Amino acid sequence: MKLFRFGAFEQEKPGVELPDGKKLDVSAFGEDFNEKFFATNGLNRLSEWLITNAATSPEVAEGFRYGSCVARPSKIICIGMNYAKHAYESGATELPKEPIIFFKATSALCGPNDQVIIPRNSQKTDWEVELAVIIGKKASYIEEADALSYVAGYAIHNDYSEREYQLERGGQWVKGKSNDTFAPLGPYLVTADEVGNANDLNLWLTLNGKKIQDSNTSDMIFQIPFLISYLSQFMTLLPGDMITTGTPAGVGLGMKPQMYLKAGDVVELGIEKLGAQKQEAIAWKPL
Amino acid sequence: MKLFRFGAFEQEKPGVELPDGKKLDVSAFGEDFNEKFFATNGLNRLSEWLITNAATSPEVAEGFRYGSCVARPSKIICIGMNYAKHAYESGATELPKEPIIFFKATSALCGPNDQVIIPRNSQKTDWEVELAVIIGKKASYIEEADALSYVAGYAIHNDYSEREYQLERGGQWVKGKSNDTFAPLGPYLVTADEVGNANDLNLWLTLNGKKIQDSNTSDMIFQIPFLISYLSQFMTLLPGDMITTGTPAGVGLGMKPQMYLKAGDVVELGIEKLGAQKQEAIAWKPL
Repeated sequence: MKLFRFGAFEQEKPGVELPDGKKLDVSAFGEDFNEKFFATNGLNRLSEWLITNAATSPEVAEGFRYGSCVARPSKIICIGMNYAKHAYESGATELPKEPIIFFKATSALCGPNDQVIIPRNSQKTDWEVELAVIIGKKASYIEEADALSYVAGYAIHNDYSEREYQLERGGQWVKGKSNDTFAPLGPYLVTADEVGNANDLNLWLTLNGKKIQDSNTSDMIFQIPFLISYLSQFMTLLPGDMITTGTPAGVGLGMKPQMYLKAGDVVELGIEKLGAQKQEAIAWKPL
Repeated sequence: MKLFRFGAFEQEKPGVELPDGKKLDVSAFGEDFNEKFFATNGLNRLSEWLITNAATSPEVAEGFRYGSCVARPSKIICIGMNYAKHAYESGATELPKEPIIFFKATSALCGPNDQVIIPRNSQKTDWEVELAVIIGKKASYIEEADALSYVAGYAIHNDYSEREYQLERGGQWVKGKSNDTFAPLGPYLVTADEVGNANDLNLWLTLNGKKIQDSNTSDMIFQIPFLISYLSQFMTLLPGDMITTGTPAGVGLGMKPQMYLKAGDVVELGIEKLGAQKQEAIAWKPL
């Protein structure tokens, strides 16, 4: 099943894309794709509801805005330096022995094709195509062998990062990861059954049409089942929580000379089976 | 006004303590103390509601459990090394030039007198009495001079920390800050008007009856208005969000030899005007 959300920011409605490409408005199901939905077996309930209600559900009108494919979760957990070449391009001298964990503010969440806002007075906004895992049920101290049963599905995430804020302003990466629009998610949450092996998906990113990230999720240093089990030792994962699994080489920080977004730049990115995103960079301005 | 929440974990009801100490169940007001409540001028609406409804609101029965004084927020933002002596006891060789920011998982939130669970196989659970600021309205790129108008109120927080997870397991402090029960908050959200100058409050913590933290919030390196303004450059603060402003000297990490919690230990802490907390440490066990 492919879930999406559409409409104005923070007023999104739920939708489902059928195998034939039809995009249904499933507002009549009466639930958003949020913590409660996932916690109460929402994926199965929605699937059953569709059997009798798909035929009478309206199609979404063309030209709609995609919102984040899940509602604001309790946490966005990010894995740092999880692809070897990216770790080295970022200045690491050795690979991490354990996953590096950091958080991104959930207020940064936005739709997959929303404009990305370069923060006020900022010079170093950078891109990172990543595979995001959406948790389907509460997970605490779980075993690696059981980990995939806790996954609702997968989505594309661009882990936007302001490198000066992250690395030059005193301690802890969250400072450069949390500005508004720094977490486009979607267009689809594709359920785990449709994705199959999520550690074997091509992923790519282009800047103004030129491909600069190009890898496969099989290149992750720490693979998804290990990550979920590992994280669950340090915090309880809640339904709807998002784990974003790190980016491959090709970010602006790693280029010689370094290169960052300026207003008007266009970033496109995609992951096999999950669709694609497109963001135009704009300068911050007061509301 | 003093707000609290009472009842079973994640099923808390809202309460208000009156100046005479009476504790009212204000469930009839029909709202929890959450993002929506603060965003819609809930403090003023509740205050007006009480004028006509306090007399008929039931008192909370004795022996109740205090929950976190606000519902799970979008983020728990923590300030690191914000008291000079604590920075040095933690191993810093100089004071931070800008605030250090890190996050704590909101799933760690709990009541002020709940037991603190020492994580499985963990040896280094440490305490940190802190003043928490609760945000009252959405804040983005705000000026220091305006910052206090964005505050709903203040509460006590114990920023529990597993020092091995935080400092010895590879990068980024969030790893040692996010286990369940690591964020007791309350008992009260005391509204800003009742607190007055929040950068002049005594705060203290005892371990098994012996005082080991004892300071005043005037000792913060970065004071509250600066912190709020500073944070709002890096992320949008949402109503109900919690900023915890750092701990003074006296944590286990800084003792010689270092000392950490073991099952049966009792931690008590308090801040002038905000009440007190008490936690008993217990070992993790499977549900």
